[in-house]
Amino acid sequence: MDFVIEPIGKLKNEFRKLPGVGEKTALRYAYKIINMTEEEAKAFAQSIIDCKKKVRYCKICGNFSEEETCEVCKKRDKSVICVVKEPKDVIAMEKLHEYKGVYHVLHGVLSPLNGIGPNDIRVKELLARISEEVVEVIMATNLDVEGDATAMYIAKLLKPLGVKVTRLAHGIPVGSEIEFTDASTLTQALFDRKQI
Amino acid sequence: MDFVIEPIGKLKNEFRKLPGVGEKTALRYAYKIINMTEEEAKAFAQSIIDCKKKVRYCKICGNFSEEETCEVCKKRDKSVICVVKEPKDVIAMEKLHEYKGVYHVLHGVLSPLNGIGPNDIRVKELLARISEEVVEVIMATNLDVEGDATAMYIAKLLKPLGVKVTRLAHGIPVGSEIEFTDASTLTQALFDRKQI
Repeated sequence: MDFVIEPIGKLKNEFRKLPGVGEKTALRYAYKIINMTEEEAKAFAQSIIDCKKKVRYCKICGNFSEEETCEVCKKRDKSVICVVKEPKDVIAMEKLHEYKGVYHVLHGVLSPLNGIGPNDIRVKELLARISEEVVEVIMATNLDVEGDATAMYIAKLLKPLGVKVTRLAHGIPVGSEIEFTDASTLTQALFDRKQI
Repeated sequence: MDFVIEPIGKLKNEFRKLPGVGEKTALRYAYKIINMTEEEAKAFAQSIIDCKKKVRYCKICGNFSEEETCEVCKKRDKSVICVVKEPKDVIAMEKLHEYKGVYHVLHGVLSPLNGIGPNDIRVKELLARISEEVVEVIMATNLDVEGDATAMYIAKLLKPLGVKVTRLAHGIPVGSEIEFTDASTLTQALFDRKQI
């Protein structure tokens, strides 16, 4: 049984839909809304509606975009495509200010156990993008079983098309100590050692 | 600099206004909204507006209410008033299913360091409620310096009016061990020992 009045309870239930938000946190959020001015609450509500209405997926790379084609696809070097699992991976890459190419968001990785096959993620769309212009495809999926399998699967499809496929390097994080590096990472670092 | 498009960035900033929500969490919340259907997002936004619009404070006890007077003030035993700091303390008390009286929400406690004096919390309103009918006032503010000072201050004002003022018992929590009880709590438990 709830001990809060209906409008608060309803808002609490909405907040509970957000990732990682439990009963108590949701209630704290609802109280915060009550303590806002009416204008602030309206602006909050409006930004939810706007975000849902204005944000769509770029028809080329699949990243979030306000227009049919995103800014990155419009302006950047199309000879290199970086393939990522989710839009938030694009943000992580963009923060580096190092990468000048375009992206391809898969919106998932292969996961046979969860019934996610090649047709459930944007593989076809990636293949369709490969033209003379494309020199390299960087696989930037996570180094877990699913991310790895996805990278390998896509690499196999791309190689016959004559495009260079690379994978982000995995190894000991910068600044961390060998003593405390976990065995899998250290093994990877050993295998991928390079001449200096 | 942000690497997200404007509507997402705007919504992220709104979520950041919620207590304890940082940059990354706000972005996760925004992504969740994007993944909702348009109906779900609209319902979310509407519940924020509804909550802000429908919820007001009960003119008697100061707790959240949909009407001018809350259900508790309308229906319950008015001879006992439980004084709490915030509306959420009412919820904690209500969960017990033990308390049959009414409440008085102070909306704060005395805190000279933060410039909060008796006129900034609902003390006058409490005094105005004291009538022949009221037998007991239970002070249920926290046992910290400010909560204690507030309880003492209000008790001093109420006693001349001939009303019994009590304070929630403080001592060793049920189920915990004496060995691990902190010194202040154990001291309190010793002082407040009772005959069995």
